[in-house]
Amino acid sequence: MTPSTFDTALPVTVREVGLRDGLQILARTLPTADKLQWLHGAYRAGLRELEVGSFVPPKLMPQLADTSEIVERALELPGLTVSVLVPNLKGAERAIDSGAHAMLLPLSASHAHSLANLRKAPDEAVDEVARMRDLRDARASHCAIEVGVSTAFGCTIQGRVEPDEVLRLIERALAAGAERIGLADTVGYADPLAVNRLFTQARGVAGDRLSCAHFHDTRGLGLANVFAAWQTGVRRFDACLGGLGGCPHAPGASGNVATEDVAYLFASMGVPTGLAFDRLLALRASLAGWLAGEPLHGSLWRAGLPKTMSAAA
Amino acid sequence: MTPSTFDTALPVTVREVGLRDGLQILARTLPTADKLQWLHGAYRAGLRELEVGSFVPPKLMPQLADTSEIVERALELPGLTVSVLVPNLKGAERAIDSGAHAMLLPLSASHAHSLANLRKAPDEAVDEVARMRDLRDARASHCAIEVGVSTAFGCTIQGRVEPDEVLRLIERALAAGAERIGLADTVGYADPLAVNRLFTQARGVAGDRLSCAHFHDTRGLGLANVFAAWQTGVRRFDACLGGLGGCPHAPGASGNVATEDVAYLFASMGVPTGLAFDRLLALRASLAGWLAGEPLHGSLWRAGLPKTMSAAA
Repeated sequence: MTPSTFDTALPVTVREVGLRDGLQILARTLPTADKLQWLHGAYRAGLRELEVGSFVPPKLMPQLADTSEIVERALELPGLTVSVLVPNLKGAERAIDSGAHAMLLPLSASHAHSLANLRKAPDEAVDEVARMRDLRDARASHCAIEVGVSTAFGCTIQGRVEPDEVLRLIERALAAGAERIGLADTVGYADPLAVNRLFTQARGVAGDRLSCAHFHDTRGLGLANVFAAWQTGVRRFDACLGGLGGCPHAPGASGNVATEDVAYLFASMGVPTGLAFDRLLALRASLAGWLAGEPLHGSLWRAGLPKTMSAAA
Repeated sequence: MTPSTFDTALPVTVREVGLRDGLQILARTLPTADKLQWLHGAYRAGLRELEVGSFVPPKLMPQLADTSEIVERALELPGLTVSVLVPNLKGAERAIDSGAHAMLLPLSASHAHSLANLRKAPDEAVDEVARMRDLRDARASHCAIEVGVSTAFGCTIQGRVEPDEVLRLIERALAAGAERIGLADTVGYADPLAVNRLFTQARGVAGDRLSCAHFHDTRGLGLANVFAAWQTGVRRFDACLGGLGGCPHAPGASGNVATEDVAYLFASMGVPTGLAFDRLLALRASLAGWLAGEPLHGSLWRAGLPKTMSAAA
């Protein structure tokens, strides 16, 4: 083991992406008032980084049409890092205008998924990163540019995705001006060994700019993959409360790893996250009410904490 | 990393323990004919090691009263290793008489759990191991003696269980004549880091006689724990089809890791298990029928295999 492999002193950041990734796949639109309660509940539970929406055309995704308002209210919370998803330059412009701290462009390593999701080939999406960077710099904005490499471990449309293609796209995205890179297992094809290999290789290319891991729990390996990525040095993880989420262009994909379960994984290992279980679980219960009828996932809510652990942060 | 950490060439043995651990907690008794179908279905799916029952007094556990018959039929299957659980010397005598290849004595590292489960203190259970060994040797039987250290990662009754106590009991059990040691997270308190530490330490004490890991998925960490144990060199894992199981003296505990999910974890990493998914999932569907109304668990059955994987062994 390298010395850093099991370093539990460094805190882990869990980025709650439910307000974007969790809601975008639902047919219903959660009222803004409920989203704001979610936002404040997440903040009270200790979450300090949230992806709160997406600047896509409202007619394509009416569920997220109130993203500007959510960003505005999120920016009122001290110490909260607010990020949004942007599919293109137009979205980036709105993100910069909104004052969000970071914008995330999904860059699919699967050609087929990229065309289905963004209507662009992966290299065309990289070109858009360069235009986003130019715009951001021209506006003297501080909005960080993060590229999330999706379908990095395989694709339901295309099947296999070559690790070399992922690494090539990371290299190109960084050259185009991306400041942070995340790797996403959009459809739940990753396994802990593949995670270990690809994150290790990606760190070789991106260094500390490799900053986020995004896993889905489609086939039960979500938390094993989080652990494997953590072993390679990742200290920032996307998650959705109640394991919400999925991808409309990835048939069969179920939810993201559940925020409360990721928090439990790290707490049980003694890794600080700043998250309070009692509040996370109370928020999950509220969410179950707001989204009555939608399937929620995750494990911790059912069994509760072990006798040996405390519910507060 | 040590060179062996990610050695995928060595096959992994999944020991199906559903016929014992899965059934003992149910109020109903599965008819012998269904158990035999399960046995044969498991064999057809490629499982080559099964824990088929328990030699406990039938009045205490009528669900497993037909263990002798199941052992007899299991021994007809070529290349199948047949093990049974035994709580004491009397059970060991029946195991030896049955011709089973191995008998497993649970040894709880939690004093409180040991009293509740076996009505003996842990050290008294170790004394029973010595008597089992004497009997086995006196009978010139080849029935292997495995000690499964249960509640090795904590206990719902007692709370914390000290790793030093686990190591002390392993040492004593080996001295008393146990030939193989397993570590069990009976109540789902383990986390991957604790698993890494305790299995590494246990290997220091037991060497290659440390031969099995038994995890429950109570709080979603089951497969992460399997992966962590595999990283320390474990190549044999207990699992229950459909994530059945639990412990009557461990309130709140839910099922074992699901056989089909453990098989998927290793197959996705390229580690040979000899298991065929199509047959495992067909057997799971049969099980859902035999046990209609009982909650089954697991993930793979819902999403199916990735496009990149084949269903056959």
